[in-house]
Amino acid sequence: MLVTRENKLGPETRPRVLTEPVSELTTNRLSVYLRCLSALDAEGVRTISSQALAEQFHLNAAQIRKDLAYFGEFGVRGIGYYVKELRRHLRQILGLDRGVRVGIVGAGNLGLALADYGGFRDDGFEIVALFDTLKDKIGRRSRGGVLIHDVKDFKKIARRESVGIAVIAVPAAAAQAAVNTVVAADIRAILNFSPGAFKVPRGVKLKSMDLTVSLESLSFFLVRGETDA
Amino acid sequence: MLVTRENKLGPETRPRVLTEPVSELTTNRLSVYLRCLSALDAEGVRTISSQALAEQFHLNAAQIRKDLAYFGEFGVRGIGYYVKELRRHLRQILGLDRGVRVGIVGAGNLGLALADYGGFRDDGFEIVALFDTLKDKIGRRSRGGVLIHDVKDFKKIARRESVGIAVIAVPAAAAQAAVNTVVAADIRAILNFSPGAFKVPRGVKLKSMDLTVSLESLSFFLVRGETDA
Repeated sequence: MLVTRENKLGPETRPRVLTEPVSELTTNRLSVYLRCLSALDAEGVRTISSQALAEQFHLNAAQIRKDLAYFGEFGVRGIGYYVKELRRHLRQILGLDRGVRVGIVGAGNLGLALADYGGFRDDGFEIVALFDTLKDKIGRRSRGGVLIHDVKDFKKIARRESVGIAVIAVPAAAAQAAVNTVVAADIRAILNFSPGAFKVPRGVKLKSMDLTVSLESLSFFLVRGETDA
Repeated sequence: MLVTRENKLGPETRPRVLTEPVSELTTNRLSVYLRCLSALDAEGVRTISSQALAEQFHLNAAQIRKDLAYFGEFGVRGIGYYVKELRRHLRQILGLDRGVRVGIVGAGNLGLALADYGGFRDDGFEIVALFDTLKDKIGRRSRGGVLIHDVKDFKKIARRESVGIAVIAVPAAAAQAAVNTVVAADIRAILNFSPGAFKVPRGVKLKSMDLTVSLESLSFFLVRGETDA
């Protein structure tokens, strides 16, 4: 256990200063808790116990307590968690309170769909720019109004727009070049939708989501009947 | 090692009959190899060694050989792999040669974007139906022409359209109900984009991709500078 000076109970509790690395599985769960708390807050729920939170959203109460304890003492004995306060803390822990600005490389079907997907904005992510190599696309906008820039101007635009996260949504053959462009502009966090394995320098985090790979894995399951996850 | 009767080398080689379960990491890599082979085939490349394949696409040559050996002996000494043949075998192994029909529950931003995303069709997945609960949406079509049905008719439409995989793209609060609807229609493979943890019976495979969770994990990395993946 970490010991912190500020250890009061209740809504005033502050997140801990961390001294250990946090696993990605933990941060993924924090995201899920945040989504659940937002839903509860929207319903007007003021407090909730870890047990009730777990039951309502099919989560694990012990895991919730353990994950949250890592960041501070948010629970109040006999009351549980204050929904609004815990939500605010989680947003702060995840860096969402400052707003995160996102640039998308690739203004094809997927890039345009992602640019206009309302779900990101609701969660504190703002898509501020699209980038492409095709002359026909540069200077046009997505249906939602996001301007498409020449990828050659990535560094300049990314700085001007304070882009924190780059999304890569280009064909496989162009993906490593896109990753290199983004890394050269000092972007340290990349969400990649292009197939393949890409090299990034130390200190840069690249997460890959390949929609087709997921569908193909399900297709394989249907053919073979494999059930190992 | 498995021993198979048909063990000829060259393009005539058939995939093995499997006697062991295959990990999802393996099938994910097969998907990546397939994408690489499709790119090579489009470029007119006829044969490639595991080393050249690995170098060109930033993969691991030993891993490629091991993964493919699991399904059959596809490599030819001194030649490598026949690109077209190996591509055809991988499509067959992944069940893509039969065409996979997909229904999407949720005709919001994300559902509509996925329905019209050309990348799926290129890879052998056909989006045959959208489903929603909102009267305003039912009977309308996505920009690409996919009809939106009442989710109450899911079972009937899914059977008529031979839906193999269901995609869930509904708000968090509606997601477990959508999963239940799909499972009740005997769908055994689900790709879920809604946040949260969902219960499915044995024999049903559910894969979750939460775009916001991925972005939030990257945001956390930017705030804290964690580098563990």
